[in-house]
Amino acid sequence: MTQLYDRVALIGLGLIASSMFWAMKRAGLAGEVTGFARSAETRATAREIGLCDRVCDTMAQAVEGADLVVLCVPVGVMGAVAAELGPLLKPGATVTDVGSVKADVIAQVGPHIPENVHFIPAHPLAGTEHSGPRSGFAELFDNRWCLLVPADGTDPSATARLRELWEGLGANVEEMDAEHHDLVLAVTSHAPHLIAYTMVGVADDLRRVTDSEVIKYSAAGFRDFTRIAASDPTMWRDVFLTNKDATLEILGRFTEELFALQRAIRQGDGEHLHAYFTRTRAIRRGIIQAGQDTDAPDFGRGGGRAK
Amino acid sequence: MTQLYDRVALIGLGLIASSMFWAMKRAGLAGEVTGFARSAETRATAREIGLCDRVCDTMAQAVEGADLVVLCVPVGVMGAVAAELGPLLKPGATVTDVGSVKADVIAQVGPHIPENVHFIPAHPLAGTEHSGPRSGFAELFDNRWCLLVPADGTDPSATARLRELWEGLGANVEEMDAEHHDLVLAVTSHAPHLIAYTMVGVADDLRRVTDSEVIKYSAAGFRDFTRIAASDPTMWRDVFLTNKDATLEILGRFTEELFALQRAIRQGDGEHLHAYFTRTRAIRRGIIQAGQDTDAPDFGRGGGRAK
Repeated sequence: MTQLYDRVALIGLGLIASSMFWAMKRAGLAGEVTGFARSAETRATAREIGLCDRVCDTMAQAVEGADLVVLCVPVGVMGAVAAELGPLLKPGATVTDVGSVKADVIAQVGPHIPENVHFIPAHPLAGTEHSGPRSGFAELFDNRWCLLVPADGTDPSATARLRELWEGLGANVEEMDAEHHDLVLAVTSHAPHLIAYTMVGVADDLRRVTDSEVIKYSAAGFRDFTRIAASDPTMWRDVFLTNKDATLEILGRFTEELFALQRAIRQGDGEHLHAYFTRTRAIRRGIIQAGQDTDAPDFGRGGGRAK
Repeated sequence: MTQLYDRVALIGLGLIASSMFWAMKRAGLAGEVTGFARSAETRATAREIGLCDRVCDTMAQAVEGADLVVLCVPVGVMGAVAAELGPLLKPGATVTDVGSVKADVIAQVGPHIPENVHFIPAHPLAGTEHSGPRSGFAELFDNRWCLLVPADGTDPSATARLRELWEGLGANVEEMDAEHHDLVLAVTSHAPHLIAYTMVGVADDLRRVTDSEVIKYSAAGFRDFTRIAASDPTMWRDVFLTNKDATLEILGRFTEELFALQRAIRQGDGEHLHAYFTRTRAIRRGIIQAGQDTDAPDFGRGGGRAK
């Protein structure tokens, strides 16, 4: 495949950055890939496992001469990192990020990006419940979506090149504006995560059901929740604090619906429940038809994996 | 393996019954296995795919001479089925069920079981989001739990034989009393299901996010919810109506916790959120250590399946 960037700098070396590195190498998309992480332990791990062509001890070293700089840090520190980064950027370079929230990241990072540098926010919809430099793998983005959120007036050729990079990493790419991105993700990802965290917390709190019972009999539903609720705490704290309005709006609607279903249970209104559950089943069929999951029976079993 | 029952009758031919049949055949646990379903279409499908040694057009034919009768119908109709079944039972036979709720099933079924028949309620903690006679497979119960809920005074040898059957089907078996069973399951399965149904319903309702976007960008969290929310509507309606008190209690606690987290988001209390998410992550580790799931990264990807 074509080499798209001579030098790429990855700032932050967690799950997404490490997966990007392995996927860039798989496809030969970049010349040299440098990496920087604030933590000395993370840098040592990266060197140990061969993550990045060159792991740098300062951000300045990592960014020097880079054609593409990718911010792979938690959303809450994007602004601070961008402030340090701004003066180091090469004219004509592109800065992008991989944050799960877009409007807030644009507000944090935008002011620090010089006029002669392209800033094209991005969000790959991919991840696992693991985090850290050892958790990445080249296939993470294969057949997943990556959403680009370029501002009006962004150089189309810079956007086109970044799109080509993400396609080369295996992803399908779409463009979207930041506010709509944040609402869509509040529905499909942020609110579901908070709900899963909550349910797992409730189970842990309950005195009459011991922890060992919760764990032992974690049938179907709950086990999927614990997987979601095992995701990186720092990343998710920042997501909720920076996509506050959309998340709270969706949670408000969720509570309203939940109360209606609770009332149906209390009143013994089986018709209401059955109609509701039939409707949600149809949505699942839509997802399978859209190719975002398989029809293989899995529920609570982990397919062939958990045997 | 030893043949444990000469004749087994499966009443209802959905996911659980069909999986029991294939697993009984795999291990040679039963002589003849008969099957009955209310729907002529289901019986025709069963005959077509070789499900059961003999598919019967009436419950009386299926139950005649059976040493073990397994009620595999939705919890809501257990009482009506038991009323019809009671007079047909052979003295010394065992009746069991596979319902997800136990106290209500015991109240419905118990009065119809003659003195000279053993009634030993059971609940295999296994399933998929698929339903119907074609959805079963022999491995469904492998390494899953089956909870037996024998009443005081039940013949220990009848209980021991049923335990041996479930172990032969691949399951790990424990005994528990009915009230405790219903509370544990409300936490680990029933409340999580209602929550998943609710969240998927909210997404479907939202006007500003199109259905196709919800489906297309159904990242991680939400896709797991849709899988849960695709489960059989009739089964789940009955679960909520018959395990009403425990489910409503857990949902009440859930709402309380969710409101506390919503307030933390609104107030920007990152410490509260981070501490909460760190605690839930530890529960996930407990489940992996207990062998109920694998550590393979899966979140939103379906492991090796969804590629």
